[in-house]
Amino acid sequence: MTNHQIRLAARPVGLPDESSWQATEEPVPAPGDGEVLVQVTHLSLDPAMRGWMNDVRSYIPPVGLGEVMRAGGVGRVVESRDPRFAEGAWVSGFPGIQEYAALKGDDLLPIDPGLAPPERWLGALGMTGMTAYFGLLDVGAPLEGETVVVSGAAGATGSMVGQIAKIKGCRVVGIAGGADKCAWLVDELGFDAAVDYKSDDFRSALREAAPKVDVFFDNVGGDVLDAVLARLNRHARVVICGAISQYNATEAVRGPSNYMQLLVTRSRMEGFVVFDFANRYAEAAREIAQWLDEGTLIAREEVVPGGVAAFPATLGRLFAGENTGKLILAV
Amino acid sequence: MTNHQIRLAARPVGLPDESSWQATEEPVPAPGDGEVLVQVTHLSLDPAMRGWMNDVRSYIPPVGLGEVMRAGGVGRVVESRDPRFAEGAWVSGFPGIQEYAALKGDDLLPIDPGLAPPERWLGALGMTGMTAYFGLLDVGAPLEGETVVVSGAAGATGSMVGQIAKIKGCRVVGIAGGADKCAWLVDELGFDAAVDYKSDDFRSALREAAPKVDVFFDNVGGDVLDAVLARLNRHARVVICGAISQYNATEAVRGPSNYMQLLVTRSRMEGFVVFDFANRYAEAAREIAQWLDEGTLIAREEVVPGGVAAFPATLGRLFAGENTGKLILAV
Repeated sequence: MTNHQIRLAARPVGLPDESSWQATEEPVPAPGDGEVLVQVTHLSLDPAMRGWMNDVRSYIPPVGLGEVMRAGGVGRVVESRDPRFAEGAWVSGFPGIQEYAALKGDDLLPIDPGLAPPERWLGALGMTGMTAYFGLLDVGAPLEGETVVVSGAAGATGSMVGQIAKIKGCRVVGIAGGADKCAWLVDELGFDAAVDYKSDDFRSALREAAPKVDVFFDNVGGDVLDAVLARLNRHARVVICGAISQYNATEAVRGPSNYMQLLVTRSRMEGFVVFDFANRYAEAAREIAQWLDEGTLIAREEVVPGGVAAFPATLGRLFAGENTGKLILAV
Repeated sequence: MTNHQIRLAARPVGLPDESSWQATEEPVPAPGDGEVLVQVTHLSLDPAMRGWMNDVRSYIPPVGLGEVMRAGGVGRVVESRDPRFAEGAWVSGFPGIQEYAALKGDDLLPIDPGLAPPERWLGALGMTGMTAYFGLLDVGAPLEGETVVVSGAAGATGSMVGQIAKIKGCRVVGIAGGADKCAWLVDELGFDAAVDYKSDDFRSALREAAPKVDVFFDNVGGDVLDAVLARLNRHARVVICGAISQYNATEAVRGPSNYMQLLVTRSRMEGFVVFDFANRYAEAAREIAQWLDEGTLIAREEVVPGGVAAFPATLGRLFAGENTGKLILAV
């Protein structure tokens, strides 16, 4: 049996392209003691992957040159040397961009595809959902009636952030690229308003939709962050979840020129890493599952076929903003 | 009796110069009902003045063109129509750059020049001290043993921030411009280390002096803010008090390109305005006065003679970084 893999071949400057990757084939590994061999069925595509490709200090070590690209994924146990995981069981973890991975049992979580399809355990019930849930509720801490703005609102995390804020009784404004995404946010997800950052009147439309912002959940950075900083209410909370507009910059990252609005409005800007909330994932997943059941929260996954060979092109779609909802690769 | 004044004549682009100001003379005003006529003896020079000259949304309305320039000051009551203030009493408030001001009694605080000389009520016992005290202790909230870094450390606020952090048992590193200021911080004020931001090895010296920063009290912005963001410890607090490096920028304000370190280190950046703590000024002043008495806190004022006519040149000295400690104009 052959294991197809995608490895990091070179650290990109700007957008990753074909030269960033190397496709390799290896025999499927045998699991060591305490390990589990997982046949991967779905892989998660995330903006954070771009950061993992850079050789810089971050919340997690960079992917080494020549290593299999890091990725979250779900799959089935095909051989187990950890008594907690039986053959045939479904698990989630970080297998990387490959078809089979021998992973430590300690690094795996059991999932139940009877409750939700496997890909949802990478989206609403996985890291994406955890990021939205804890970033919004613990870091942003919105109160009922407050105005919550989220950027990258049609993306995997952003679309959940907005819906959770609605569930908590907030007024919710999404920022997304293009009329279709904006219509989806308002018509399907129940956002109070959506603003197209690509339109010429972005700033005035934002001012009208969200004159006073209490919580801003930022996935984007750059111009969008500056525009929202100009609209902060007093004692606002800016949650820094990501900065996709800057990840592929070939020049220095553009810091928020309007950061002094934090002083003017007595506000704070705070970063977080979802892994810090690991001991509360189960609690969050239970609540999210209930919202999904009730229909108060809609999860959308875009599952792309093609296996690991399709990874480079699919990652390109993510950074081009072509997806709506969670982007997943079927292996 | 004539009242000499300095009014805002034009909104400067970049550094204020002579064309920004207009010297005027008027009869000394008569106080209205509930007002007090104050003969100003000392005026406070503050970096924040530069912001007050811009016609932008801020925490306080801008000074209007043709208006007397806003300034904190102390002086004696020469005529009172507020029973709380007797003739001859000393008060502090915001008289503006002029020799006499008719001010509402509600906007004045009594001061006691028997406890400390009048100029100190603009520095350690005035807005400067309040800014350092509440910004550090309430917003930065350092714990004993943590590393506190302060920029503009030889300035009025910065020099107090560092000393208060020492009193609270922190390791304190100051960032200042030039060897003399750095030596003063360490030798006279007891900072653990001081780093010269003008030196070529600023970043490596900072890394050595403060490899992990728990609280950063920033008065400066720009390169200095970016350098310290690269050194944050986990769960650090960045207190945004000012950004003197950017106040006279003729291009767009430079935002902190390293702001994503807030995510990497799970840290927050928070702004504040000292006026929000007004109901606790008395508490802070009592504690600061005690530290001054004990000699655990050293207040340094640089009192410049010349009266209101010397204001434009003295403000230039502030922005050139030529002062050490609190810069005050004797009227």
